[in-house]
Amino acid sequence: MSILAVGTIGYDTVETRNGSVEAALGGSVSYFALAARYFAPVSVVAAVGTDFREGDRKLFAERAIDVRGMVTRDGPTFRWHGRYHEDMNVRDTISLALNVFADFSPDLLPDQRRSDFVFLANISPDLQQHVLGQVASPKVVAADTMNHWIANDRAALLRLLPRIDILTLNDEEARMLSGEHNLVKAGRAILKMGPDTVLVKRGEYGVLQFSREGLFATPAYPLEEVIDPTGAGDTFAGAFMGYIARKGGVSESALRTGVVYGCVLGSFVVEEFSVNRLAMLTWDDIERRYRGYLELTDSHHSRWTSQ
Amino acid sequence: MSILAVGTIGYDTVETRNGSVEAALGGSVSYFALAARYFAPVSVVAAVGTDFREGDRKLFAERAIDVRGMVTRDGPTFRWHGRYHEDMNVRDTISLALNVFADFSPDLLPDQRRSDFVFLANISPDLQQHVLGQVASPKVVAADTMNHWIANDRAALLRLLPRIDILTLNDEEARMLSGEHNLVKAGRAILKMGPDTVLVKRGEYGVLQFSREGLFATPAYPLEEVIDPTGAGDTFAGAFMGYIARKGGVSESALRTGVVYGCVLGSFVVEEFSVNRLAMLTWDDIERRYRGYLELTDSHHSRWTSQ
Repeated sequence: MSILAVGTIGYDTVETRNGSVEAALGGSVSYFALAARYFAPVSVVAAVGTDFREGDRKLFAERAIDVRGMVTRDGPTFRWHGRYHEDMNVRDTISLALNVFADFSPDLLPDQRRSDFVFLANISPDLQQHVLGQVASPKVVAADTMNHWIANDRAALLRLLPRIDILTLNDEEARMLSGEHNLVKAGRAILKMGPDTVLVKRGEYGVLQFSREGLFATPAYPLEEVIDPTGAGDTFAGAFMGYIARKGGVSESALRTGVVYGCVLGSFVVEEFSVNRLAMLTWDDIERRYRGYLELTDSHHSRWTSQ
Repeated sequence: MSILAVGTIGYDTVETRNGSVEAALGGSVSYFALAARYFAPVSVVAAVGTDFREGDRKLFAERAIDVRGMVTRDGPTFRWHGRYHEDMNVRDTISLALNVFADFSPDLLPDQRRSDFVFLANISPDLQQHVLGQVASPKVVAADTMNHWIANDRAALLRLLPRIDILTLNDEEARMLSGEHNLVKAGRAILKMGPDTVLVKRGEYGVLQFSREGLFATPAYPLEEVIDPTGAGDTFAGAFMGYIARKGGVSESALRTGVVYGCVLGSFVVEEFSVNRLAMLTWDDIERRYRGYLELTDSHHSRWTSQ
């Protein structure tokens, strides 16, 4: 079953202690789609500028990502320039230019309006609502958000929340949205705002999932080296949503396995700049790390009990 | 099989945003022993002052903790006064008085010298070595340490490490000891310094275990409210070591289950000030939360696959 994803496609300049990259393919939907496509077909909705590189469009198309909804508008593509601190959990935005994305208000294609699975990446709640309103009867809707919208567009966000099934956000954003410092209280408070499932992304500390069944806590895949954390959250969401779509819907089992695949794909993307590693994975790479993840988080010691 | 534990027993004054407590029973060995005793017999080695309260000695004795090695010396008991920030991961030491612990140099009792399981709580590496040297042929030796010894007594600590099996320390201390910022690299570097197992305690983010078999990552038990984090690390170590002693030795399975029981007992102790909650648990409390922990970290979805 295919996924409709709306968000940004852009060019990122990223500086980390391990080097830097200039005007590399980025944006929430780029990461999302390149992760989700390992699990289910993806159709993207985004605006790019006349400077968008043909090779980047091909990169999506060659991976069977439906780019009919990637419209080219007069002007430059969305650009972001960020710099990570020595502690890679912290970054500064040096510059941000919405460019052609500024007044983007997409009309979905007829077949996109019949999508069963919808992902609303981190864009304004009104734009998320505008897209969602065009989908006839979605089965599962997930959305991401960020501090900017929580602080400056709270009313629109609160209107959106009852219409979605799954919300992804990071720990600081969960605290901000709920007004609760404690993350368990925060997650439970956000459940009451509408979504059936809340995924709190904690970067290198893993994920807390709040669902109707209760809590699921799982660590990040421990890495010896992180080159560039950009896109880890959207990659997580892509693999997660991809797995849900492949399973055909939500169950506690699908949610948990989806979170694990999210952690697995998220661990790959940070190993290189931009989408370089994410775009080139094989199923064997993914399955090997998935099994590794299960082993290294295995407190049931199913593998070890014979010892 | 019984455990010998050496460290501090003292009186803590603790201030948190949830209130405060004055001269409450604390110290590394208090927390360790009160957690370990749920799993195996414990014999403590510590010095207390003439002001040590009879009721506190009884609290240990009534829980079948062997206090023959808790010697009373002229002078006041070890005291610590700490204040937690709004973010409970950070605390300031307001005052610290070693008192009768300052020149403590214990001689073990004859039966203590035949201990199979030894825990050297966070005291100077020379004192840890002094105690360990008196134990004839220990089966498993675990030790805790802290930034103070790593910075100021590094040579003695490096001499100790090849003589122990298991080292527990927190994430900042692992970085400091290894000189590696990345925790996976740090854990692996510390393995090369001697211990077969390194347990990196990350507070609310859980535990990373490095062993000869590889890595084990597990989250903390998510709590809605933390009243007082004091003693969580020693309680973790107590339950962990208690479980290892009950199993009669180290295996990957025993290590992992020990870590889980460590997280479980650690989650109880922080729910009240001092040892109040830890001292009063029933096996039913522990087993219920243990099962809860396995469920909420269950990425194998063994419970969920039927859905």
